[in-house]
Amino acid sequence: MPRTALVVIDMINTYEHEDADTLVASVRKALPAIAALIARARASGSPVIYVNDNFGQWRSHHGELLQTALAGRHRDLVEPVTPDAESLFVIKARHSIFFETPLAYLLGQLEIERLVLCGQVTEQCVLYSALDAHVRHFKVVVPTDAVAHIHADLAEAALRMMQRNMAAERCRSDDIRFDTPGPAGTDTAP
Amino acid sequence: MPRTALVVIDMINTYEHEDADTLVASVRKALPAIAALIARARASGSPVIYVNDNFGQWRSHHGELLQTALAGRHRDLVEPVTPDAESLFVIKARHSIFFETPLAYLLGQLEIERLVLCGQVTEQCVLYSALDAHVRHFKVVVPTDAVAHIHADLAEAALRMMQRNMAAERCRSDDIRFDTPGPAGTDTAP
Amino acid sequence: MPRTALVVIDMINTYEHEDADTLVASVRKALPAIAALIARARASGSPVIYVNDNFGQWRSHHGELLQTALAGRHRDLVEPVTPDAESLFVIKARHSIFFETPLAYLLGQLEIERLVLCGQVTEQCVLYSALDAHVRHFKVVVPTDAVAHIHADLAEAALRMMQRNMAAERCRSDDIRFDTPGPAGTDTAP
Amino acid sequence: MPRTALVVIDMINTYEHEDADTLVASVRKALPAIAALIARARASGSPVIYVNDNFGQWRSHHGELLQTALAGRHRDLVEPVTPDAESLFVIKARHSIFFETPLAYLLGQLEIERLVLCGQVTEQCVLYSALDAHVRHFKVVVPTDAVAHIHADLAEAALRMMQRNMAAERCRSDDIRFDTPGPAGTDTAP
Repeated sequence: MPRTALVVIDMINTYEHEDADTLVASVRKALPAIAALIARARASGSPVIYVNDNFGQWRSHHGELLQTALAGRHRDLVEPVTPDAESLFVIKARHSIFFETPLAYLLGQLEIERLVLCGQVTEQCVLYSALDAHVRHFKVVVPTDAVAHIHADLAEAALRMMQRNMAAERCRSDDIRFDTPGPAGTDTAP
Repeated sequence: MPRTALVVIDMINTYEHEDADTLVASVRKALPAIAALIARARASGSPVIYVNDNFGQWRSHHGELLQTALAGRHRDLVEPVTPDAESLFVIKARHSIFFETPLAYLLGQLEIERLVLCGQVTEQCVLYSALDAHVRHFKVVVPTDAVAHIHADLAEAALRMMQRNMAAERCRSDDIRFDTPGPAGTDTAP
Repeated sequence: MPRTALVVIDMINTYEHEDADTLVASVRKALPAIAALIARARASGSPVIYVNDNFGQWRSHHGELLQTALAGRHRDLVEPVTPDAESLFVIKARHSIFFETPLAYLLGQLEIERLVLCGQVTEQCVLYSALDAHVRHFKVVVPTDAVAHIHADLAEAALRMMQRNMAAERCRSDDIRFDTPGPAGTDTAP
Repeated sequence: MPRTALVVIDMINTYEHEDADTLVASVRKALPAIAALIARARASGSPVIYVNDNFGQWRSHHGELLQTALAGRHRDLVEPVTPDAESLFVIKARHSIFFETPLAYLLGQLEIERLVLCGQVTEQCVLYSALDAHVRHFKVVVPTDAVAHIHADLAEAALRMMQRNMAAERCRSDDIRFDTPGPAGTDTAP
């Protein structure tokens, strides 16, 4: 199997932006599948990479982002998906997980060929990230029950675009296989 | 008005790829509006920038691409939109006009702030290019009658995504204004 | 005056790599000038941007990098240049401050046109960063008393390359002017 | 052996810029070694990739660049190194062969791991390109008799920087081995 990483997109979130209310209902629904994917990737030794907006604060590091999100009005949506000590963390400036970030370099160092994308928002950052992964020749997998949307119809169109035009595999999170666990400590080292 | 360039996407084409037949009907419909936009941009002194796939031939330059396209089975779709001596030409490797191309650098040198996107395919390269323009803070304008699609429903979803999530202006090509013409020879110099 | 940022390169450091002993002597000599530049940039309201290796740890954030460096054998070289609450912080993966980092995007948002580079190593990261700033059309200033080297002769060659081939201004740190202070709180917001 | 490409830097040249006279003498001396490297790379089936400034003309393609250079006052320096029908050609906007060009993508598609750099100018584009190759984890080889300089002392410092800080192999062009020839037509296809 190609070496796989799980990418968790924009889940460290205060949900204070426009459209947050619509989004929150969808996130709540996807949350169990996302948490289960994180647990299974960790158990298999596959890298779990959080890629997250920095809320416009270039002073902030991810510990502060996490504290801010946990102190917000939707702690219940953040707590189940918090990074652990092995998690990798990349800050992004704009929508795509690749734009002006070190992610492509990091994936190259980790020899990753396949990305499982989960998180939010299906018809925005997830779509854009799937595209940027595809043009860089990564294999993309999108579990439809582990991504959250604002507009259901645009999300469905986005999933069709990913499948048809970006060669993405569209599946249920339960059907995703990660790598067989290797010796402890060997899998996530950069 | 912000300084504007017209970007003509993937119109130098042999139409030999998969889905070409579906696409050709849509291109034929959009062709007059594209040709009219090119003529008006030229008349105003606004840069016209062709950004085109190289058909996988890194040996080819754009003169050869044009000859190949004109010798193909759809010369009638290429001839009305051929570059002239003032046209700028950027070769792209993959879907987006910005990915691994010098376009961002060229636009910076030309002090362009606003991009009018025309050409093909609405729900693929046009969508991806609108996104990559938006994350780089360009203002994007998409004339719906001057872009061609393969799947009408995905194209409509793509246009809604551009308008809603990429702050793109969606309009008819007739409604687009270019810059006032300046002194001859001053407008398109890099 | 063009809007200016002070860039502090690789000063959050454990000095445990090869060549560290040779480097430390040079850092010790440059340290007062670097600290003075940081103080003057802060006083003027100019952004102070730390760009630093992450020691290969994509798990680490800059708070941890700082703790690790302060706990190392050269706390005395780190303490005088620690970031404050207003400092911006960018993690780099490789030598240049621009390679696979959000720095170019951040500088664009801050409308910075002129970079004062200080830190280490003159003939490596400082040289490479000056080059990458020059190709992006930033004006580069290098205060020779606020950069540290490993090899004195290569450092001198690097400074000549910056001055001659990268249009960099080579000067003493005392001669550098920052922007006039603006209203409190307006200068460093992204 | 790692798969190798020969990169020919800025040899399609009119030699009309500042410093050209000093440069021309050095180019004349390096020319036989460059021509011999091109011949040997072609014979082995290794890709030969010309990466060249576009003289600021985004309207020009490489056929025009070549005609302009051949019509200039130093046809004798261009003719021995003209591209053939198999040569790949990448236009660069600024100093480094990688900055805002599709070169990294093209090398990835060709599965190249090792770059032999020849051409001009040792202490400028060759140095910058060696650096940008090194940060992208390519193995770099610089044949000292096949690169041309403006300033002999800066060129020597540049070669030491490449060898010491960029892990480049510094050698004579005669000592460079290319790949064993494969079946005709299979080696240079993208």
